[in-house]
Amino acid sequence: MDVYILGLLLVFCLGAQARPSQPECGYDSCNPIKEDMLNVHLVPHTHDDVGWLKTVDQYYYGDRNDIQNAGVQYIIDSVVQELLKDPSKRFIYVEIAFFARWWREQDEAMRDQVRMLVNQGRLEFILGGWCMNDEASTHYNAIIDQHTLGLRFLSENFAECGRPRTAWQVDPFGHSREQASLFAQLGYDSLFFGRLDYQDKNKRLNESNMEFVWKGSPNSLGETANLFTGVLFNGYGPPGGFNWNQGSGDDPMMDDKRLHDYNVEKRVDEFLKAVQDQAKHYRSRDIMMTMGSDFEYQNAHTWYKNLDKLIHYVNARQQNGSGVNLLYSTPSCYTFQQNHLNQIWNGKDDDFFPYASSAHTFWTGYFTSRPALKGYVRQSNNYLQVCKQLDTIGNYRTGWMTSSGVEVLKEAMGVAQHHDAVSGTEKQHVANDYAERLSNGYKSCENVTNMALKRLLPRFQQEPPNLQFCTLTNISKCEITENYDKVVLEVYNPLGVDSDTWVRLPVNGTVFDVFSFTGDAIPYQVIPVTSETKKIPERKGTYAQNELIFQLTGISPLGLQTVWIQKGKGDNSSYTPFKAFPSADFTMQNKLVSLTFDHITKQVKEMENLQISLKIPLHQKLMHYFGFSGNNSKDEFRASGAYCFRPNSTEPKTMMVQSAYIVQGDLVQEVHQVFPWASQVFRLYKDANNVEVEWTVGPIDISDKSGKEVISRYDTSLQNGGVFYTDANGREIQERKRNYRKTWNLNQTEPVAGNYYPVNSRIFIRDPAPDAQFTVLTDRSQGGSSVNDGQIELMVHRRLLHDDSFGVGEPLNETGADGKGLVVRGKHYLVLDTIKNSARQHRLIGLWLYRQPVIMLTNVSMDREQWYTQFNTQVSGLNTLLPENVHILTLEMIPPNPLTPISLRQAIVRLEHFYENGEDEEMSKPAIVDLQMFGFFNITGAVEMTLGANMMLKDLNRLQWRVMPSGDEPAIPYERQTYRELKLDSKGKLPQITLNPMEIKTFIIDFNG
Amino acid sequence: MDVYILGLLLVFCLGAQARPSQPECGYDSCNPIKEDMLNVHLVPHTHDDVGWLKTVDQYYYGDRNDIQNAGVQYIIDSVVQELLKDPSKRFIYVEIAFFARWWREQDEAMRDQVRMLVNQGRLEFILGGWCMNDEASTHYNAIIDQHTLGLRFLSENFAECGRPRTAWQVDPFGHSREQASLFAQLGYDSLFFGRLDYQDKNKRLNESNMEFVWKGSPNSLGETANLFTGVLFNGYGPPGGFNWNQGSGDDPMMDDKRLHDYNVEKRVDEFLKAVQDQAKHYRSRDIMMTMGSDFEYQNAHTWYKNLDKLIHYVNARQQNGSGVNLLYSTPSCYTFQQNHLNQIWNGKDDDFFPYASSAHTFWTGYFTSRPALKGYVRQSNNYLQVCKQLDTIGNYRTGWMTSSGVEVLKEAMGVAQHHDAVSGTEKQHVANDYAERLSNGYKSCENVTNMALKRLLPRFQQEPPNLQFCTLTNISKCEITENYDKVVLEVYNPLGVDSDTWVRLPVNGTVFDVFSFTGDAIPYQVIPVTSETKKIPERKGTYAQNELIFQLTGISPLGLQTVWIQKGKGDNSSYTPFKAFPSADFTMQNKLVSLTFDHITKQVKEMENLQISLKIPLHQKLMHYFGFSGNNSKDEFRASGAYCFRPNSTEPKTMMVQSAYIVQGDLVQEVHQVFPWASQVFRLYKDANNVEVEWTVGPIDISDKSGKEVISRYDTSLQNGGVFYTDANGREIQERKRNYRKTWNLNQTEPVAGNYYPVNSRIFIRDPAPDAQFTVLTDRSQGGSSVNDGQIELMVHRRLLHDDSFGVGEPLNETGADGKGLVVRGKHYLVLDTIKNSARQHRLIGLWLYRQPVIMLTNVSMDREQWYTQFNTQVSGLNTLLPENVHILTLEMIPPNPLTPISLRQAIVRLEHFYENGEDEEMSKPAIVDLQMFGFFNITGAVEMTLGANMMLKDLNRLQWRVMPSGDEPAIPYERQTYRELKLDSKGKLPQITLNPMEIKTFIIDFNG
Repeated sequence: MDVYILGLLLVFCLGAQARPSQPECGYDSCNPIKEDMLNVHLVPHTHDDVGWLKTVDQYYYGDRNDIQNAGVQYIIDSVVQELLKDPSKRFIYVEIAFFARWWREQDEAMRDQVRMLVNQGRLEFILGGWCMNDEASTHYNAIIDQHTLGLRFLSENFAECGRPRTAWQVDPFGHSREQASLFAQLGYDSLFFGRLDYQDKNKRLNESNMEFVWKGSPNSLGETANLFTGVLFNGYGPPGGFNWNQGSGDDPMMDDKRLHDYNVEKRVDEFLKAVQDQAKHYRSRDIMMTMGSDFEYQNAHTWYKNLDKLIHYVNARQQNGSGVNLLYSTPSCYTFQQNHLNQIWNGKDDDFFPYASSAHTFWTGYFTSRPALKGYVRQSNNYLQVCKQLDTIGNYRTGWMTSSGVEVLKEAMGVAQHHDAVSGTEKQHVANDYAERLSNGYKSCENVTNMALKRLLPRFQQEPPNLQFCTLTNISKCEITENYDKVVLEVYNPLGVDSDTWVRLPVNGTVFDVFSFTGDAIPYQVIPVTSETKKIPERKGTYAQNELIFQLTGISPLGLQTVWIQKGKGDNSSYTPFKAFPSADFTMQNKLVSLTFDHITKQVKEMENLQISLKIPLHQKLMHYFGFSGNNSKDEFRASGAYCFRPNSTEPKTMMVQSAYIVQGDLVQEVHQVFPWASQVFRLYKDANNVEVEWTVGPIDISDKSGKEVISRYDTSLQNGGVFYTDANGREIQERKRNYRKTWNLNQTEPVAGNYYPVNSRIFIRDPAPDAQFTVLTDRSQGGSSVNDGQIELMVHRRLLHDDSFGVGEPLNETGADGKGLVVRGKHYLVLDTIKNSARQHRLIGLWLYRQPVIMLTNVSMDREQWYTQFNTQVSGLNTLLPENVHILTLEMIPPNPLTPISLRQAIVRLEHFYENGEDEEMSKPAIVDLQMFGFFNITGAVEMTLGANMMLKDLNRLQWRVMPSGDEPAIPYERQTYRELKLDSKGKLPQITLNPMEIKTFIIDFNG
Repeated sequence: MDVYILGLLLVFCLGAQARPSQPECGYDSCNPIKEDMLNVHLVPHTHDDVGWLKTVDQYYYGDRNDIQNAGVQYIIDSVVQELLKDPSKRFIYVEIAFFARWWREQDEAMRDQVRMLVNQGRLEFILGGWCMNDEASTHYNAIIDQHTLGLRFLSENFAECGRPRTAWQVDPFGHSREQASLFAQLGYDSLFFGRLDYQDKNKRLNESNMEFVWKGSPNSLGETANLFTGVLFNGYGPPGGFNWNQGSGDDPMMDDKRLHDYNVEKRVDEFLKAVQDQAKHYRSRDIMMTMGSDFEYQNAHTWYKNLDKLIHYVNARQQNGSGVNLLYSTPSCYTFQQNHLNQIWNGKDDDFFPYASSAHTFWTGYFTSRPALKGYVRQSNNYLQVCKQLDTIGNYRTGWMTSSGVEVLKEAMGVAQHHDAVSGTEKQHVANDYAERLSNGYKSCENVTNMALKRLLPRFQQEPPNLQFCTLTNISKCEITENYDKVVLEVYNPLGVDSDTWVRLPVNGTVFDVFSFTGDAIPYQVIPVTSETKKIPERKGTYAQNELIFQLTGISPLGLQTVWIQKGKGDNSSYTPFKAFPSADFTMQNKLVSLTFDHITKQVKEMENLQISLKIPLHQKLMHYFGFSGNNSKDEFRASGAYCFRPNSTEPKTMMVQSAYIVQGDLVQEVHQVFPWASQVFRLYKDANNVEVEWTVGPIDISDKSGKEVISRYDTSLQNGGVFYTDANGREIQERKRNYRKTWNLNQTEPVAGNYYPVNSRIFIRDPAPDAQFTVLTDRSQGGSSVNDGQIELMVHRRLLHDDSFGVGEPLNETGADGKGLVVRGKHYLVLDTIKNSARQHRLIGLWLYRQPVIMLTNVSMDREQWYTQFNTQVSGLNTLLPENVHILTLEMIPPNPLTPISLRQAIVRLEHFYENGEDEEMSKPAIVDLQMFGFFNITGAVEMTLGANMMLKDLNRLQWRVMPSGDEPAIPYERQTYRELKLDSKGKLPQITLNPMEIKTFIIDFNG
């Protein structure tokens, strides 16, 4: 026997166990089509919600199957086994939050087998985010982060073959253009989704326009943000009667003629009919069928066994001239075939909001559902960025050791972006679990920030004590400040530019000494804690009677400032007790803005921008709709619920001010309005150009057995002609027109809910005649609209007594710590300016609102001199200033790869030009940035990556699609630069970077300390 | 590289794919226990009903999952995959009806893998019958056949390693001692079951008497029929909270501490508690836990993955001194450990009927449920035996070609024995499916019998035409006899002795010529079809106006007799029209028996055995109970249903005779009674020693919205002192005592239902004072009792309007072809004799009732002379007479094994001594039989097998158990002979065979033609 024969034996032997892992992935690994036939791409898949009716971990394990039969561990287990049996089989997996849990439970032998499946394109990752995120209430910073978390998991474990080529948003309830833009920048070749307005879908079906090129950023990024997009025919399910999940009631393929109920011919006929029914609505000779659904494939075998037979028997009909060819495929392989057509596709440059599934079922309630969670998620993003930055800046030598600390919050934020998480459409216990995860993330983050402080603060040997976050100062609760006489604050600024901030701390007493980082006294004001705040049940056990208020200015970019606070011995001249609302109209104003309140109604009546003397009537009211109480037996009886907003009248009911009082001080002026179960504070800080409106709503009264949806409505005199503007995921601005859709002739059936749009961070109306723009910025995502001219309304809270029958199975009836209706507090920021000036205002405030300075604090026993001697009281992470139109979107340590030298440190840096093209005369110009801006480490090289930081941009080779010109494409005067490997020149300098409007550039930098 | 290394490589290579199939099965393959610990035998299993809520094929495929989520194909698929992964895993499979379906769909590669699993004891067949048969309403002939079908499938495909060692009756609703006896004879080492009377169970739990040695035939077979028997602790389910079937609501093992809901310690604590809770009720340091349930393991992985973790974490507690050891095991391995104890077990010599699950829930309704199906199943057994015999006798040269023909009815009978088939506890559509299968079996059987006739009848070249069965002559329907003028009958006698039979054929006309096989005229009588019969909707389209009645005598054993019938031209003196019931009491009598009817009530009043002048008052009434109409919310509200019998009163309501008429003829005398929705015929044939009572019941009136359970009650003057006797599965007689159980102090809570027992073929009462025994034989299984002294009652039909909430989910409300309540017709046979003489009577009638001659017939165009010239008109299959106390239980062709020479034919022959020890002075003596009895072939050798014909008896080495002596064991004066290989001696003779009372000897004979 010679070596040749031995070799054959070995090959045979290996072949039977695991094929050699020669990567053959990508489009080359697709199963072949038959050119002259109608090819049906069967896509076995599972849709695994990262929390919904059960928590993400309950779903992973299959716990609480009494709620829902779903266990993801079994899905992946069993799919892998099926794929190993047969090289022709395909499966796509989407949600990395689950896959990563599974992966870390596997031994290396199993991992090798899975790598082999991935390398051969048999298991294909699609989307590959940590979750399939909501598109309405998610912020782009968090969207990018959650995709990065998933995509880098894949690239680290599977290299190029693990890179998803297709985005897959099959379940979210409405689709954002910004999401499409981000997907394009993430490098996807296509996007598929399942839900769109039923009128839109009908039109697209009739016109075979289910697939098109979506222009994600027609005004700023142009082609870079274009994305081939397909609407799935059956949502994401199989054609009717062809679900073969274990336990499905659909008939299996019964092909043993000796048994009763043989049904092969009947089933083949039925399937061929389903194929024809679908094919007539699509343009090509390839169609895709999604063979799976929610948490299916726990027993993958039942699906595959029947699919195998289906393929066999349907394809056998080719002998009879059926002309239909079935194959196992993936959305990528389908995309590749569509791309081969080389046809000219229609374009689309607006978005898919709002989503209506029928005439009275507008999924616009979830824009606001669970406002507390939505606020917490937004705040958590702020903390996560701080945590990642301090992990990098402060701990670059040991960063990888603490990255597990950051990881907790990263993953918590990853799952919180899910389309049943921040969306507010999960069960209550699941919402609690999301919040618990975020809270655990904060705790873990504290470890990270303290490690950073221990590196950044000491001047000598002494380490600072551990500092804590105080995350409940919004309800005047902070154990340290209210209980200790000496407190030190370290305030961190996560922006790339100097930042100012107003600090409000719960305290007892009225006289303090507040020292700046230079040791100078900082002016302060003390205001009593309101009785409205004291009633909030979550505040139980809190003793703070007052709030200490002062301003910090000039906090360095990525820098720290120390504040020293101690009980003082002077007079209490800084104490400003509440005063009765005066008998005349009351105006609060600073140098920039004034707001006038009616002395009878106690409501706002007028706002003025004092700099330009632009004065408009402005009336603000808290109002509420009554949620429709239907039994959902048919569309007319659809209840307002977690998903759907359906007021029982187009006229909201005004909530009357019961009482009002004011605060007048040097630093801040406030007007407080008290309603039966709500309150508001209008707040004008010294030197502020905007008015802060803090709303506190709840417990929403349901004693009348009626659910309510509370709005804050701003009525102005502006003639906006039905047009208003909202942001998409905190980034680009979308124009909205009342009772209008750009791509079809709208039959408006819900005059209020049908005009609601997600307001992620801002909404505004314009009137060219007085050249006025009235902008409201929000601290969290809300639903909003301009139902009548001059109006802006934002839904701030909702409490409903009926489920809207889309699965969650609970009415959205949140309760607080006392079991009564949940009290929620949040803020609006009002800006009045000219149209031309407004962009700069809302861009800066919008940026600051999600990147506020974060306070870490502790009580101390040492004295002030000692602290100021031992520790740095000011730290800056940058050694140059960034251009005003650019900010550091991401600074995130990469855990070291075992293969790279221990001395090499890497981080992800994302720079963003945060203005749109043409939005502002100055700011919308391209910006030039020096990557060598960081103060604590030296960059030795950089490479530009795709947005997800999972592949080098130079290697990205997206499929090209021809688009029908629309005729109104704006010219984009800038050319995008791609930076391959940036290396230090002889002078130790890196080339500078140019950013165009709305451009995000993602780098992986190499650095040392 | 040399051959040695190559060898190593090959071994490695093979090892990774499929281990070499070295049989290591049997007790040697058990996973090891730990001697010093409490060993918990975890038995992964699935309980797969061979039809219940869905048909057997729907269950196999997973069709109609809307009814029940169950697909056996997936169970076996997925279990095999799991077993292949890990040599320590075990699974038992039970129902071969399913396994055989699966097996024939597999390719050889898969079969090899499964053989490997079986050879290593990883997949173990338990029970191994075609189904898990009902024990109340099944006949022993069919029980043996269905086990033979399954067991021989296993031995043919898996040899010795496929032989089940344990019987597994986990679900049937009461357990028969005869079943235990048959199991012992089938070679099982143990039996486990789940259901027994709750009072019995409590006592056994309290006394740790859950395991014992059941004496299956204490009076006749002795130790041969002893069987170690265990009552399972949790029915056949896992301990509460530990069901890990896919979708179960029980908590999975959540062992990743990084995820929320980690629960390992909690789950281990809970399991250890369950172990202790069970262990205290058992005697040994081994306990068995059944980890599975109905149709579980469709996704075997969910079970095994969690069991793996359970075993791992529970056994890890051994380090803390838990003393508990979990292992994957099987009931056989558990049995083996119990046997090792070598302790003295309690004995048990009665049975487990009736089964009560609570005070008002006696599962005694199913003894009668679906009487039509029960009758059809009994009749089908008769046809199957005929079919198998003719297949062997007539077609031994080509038998294997037609065995697929026999197979259809074999398999149909196999599934019909299931505990939700003949039991009547299945859904209506499933009952229809069972009947359809049997009907298909008859059709297939016709092919077989015609092939036999084509061999047996021709004297020359001419082949006879195809002959048909007429299976509906009981409602006077037979297309051929009623439409044609010339009809030939071939009557086959499946007994080993000459047989006589009365033939009744539907005809038109009153004058016929009936010729015997010798050409002699046979006397006949013609009776009109009654209007009661004409009303039966299933008879629609039938024209027969009369019935032609005549007697055939001396039909040879396993032989044929020809009858020629043609329209006659003589007078109609044989026509006996109906006559009015006379005004005086009416007595019908022949030489042996007389029955007297009261002229007022028209009911029976007296019976006399004329030979011995034994006369007793006898009153027979049709009566009915009203079924209790409960909602099953608690035991008191249990409804009478398919399973449970619960009359709403102890007093049945008498149904009054509306009218009566009589038939008087030379051959048969009849009294007809007509009731509002029932009728009866009392029939006395010439020379008969018993009276036939044909009852026709239905449509049971439910116009009063009340379900009814109809009984036929025989009231005599016999003083039976609460004692009555019923047969067990048609074989041994069981003594019953009213309101009494032998092994515990009965608290009787249902005076009627709690005294019901299955009457498979006979029930009798005795009174020693006049030395009288009154015996009623039945043509199908029924529930019966003697509720008051002197009485015998048999429930003949039931129609109920409520489900009894044990899963079937339908009220037992059968309807006929017209959509009205189903009409059922059946027969009782009344025997009055001395106690001493009665055994011979009921044994002979009982045998004849399930082995009646079968008629095949056709219309013919040839004339009589031609037929009688061309064809044999008498054929006998035997060339010697069998002893009177022996009959041929089985004669069945074995399809040739590809490995044996083509000339070698084999058949299974079972000979049965059908008297019990001491039952009859003469007949209970041992019998000597010459195996060389067959007329159509020469036996060249024989070997005695176990009862299932799946192993040589000499190789059987059952585990031995020591039993506590009860003190009342009868002496058994006979010694059992085992016949190893029987070979022809020099004179071409085989040794003779001795059979003791109740002994069944099973041989595989080699023969040639």
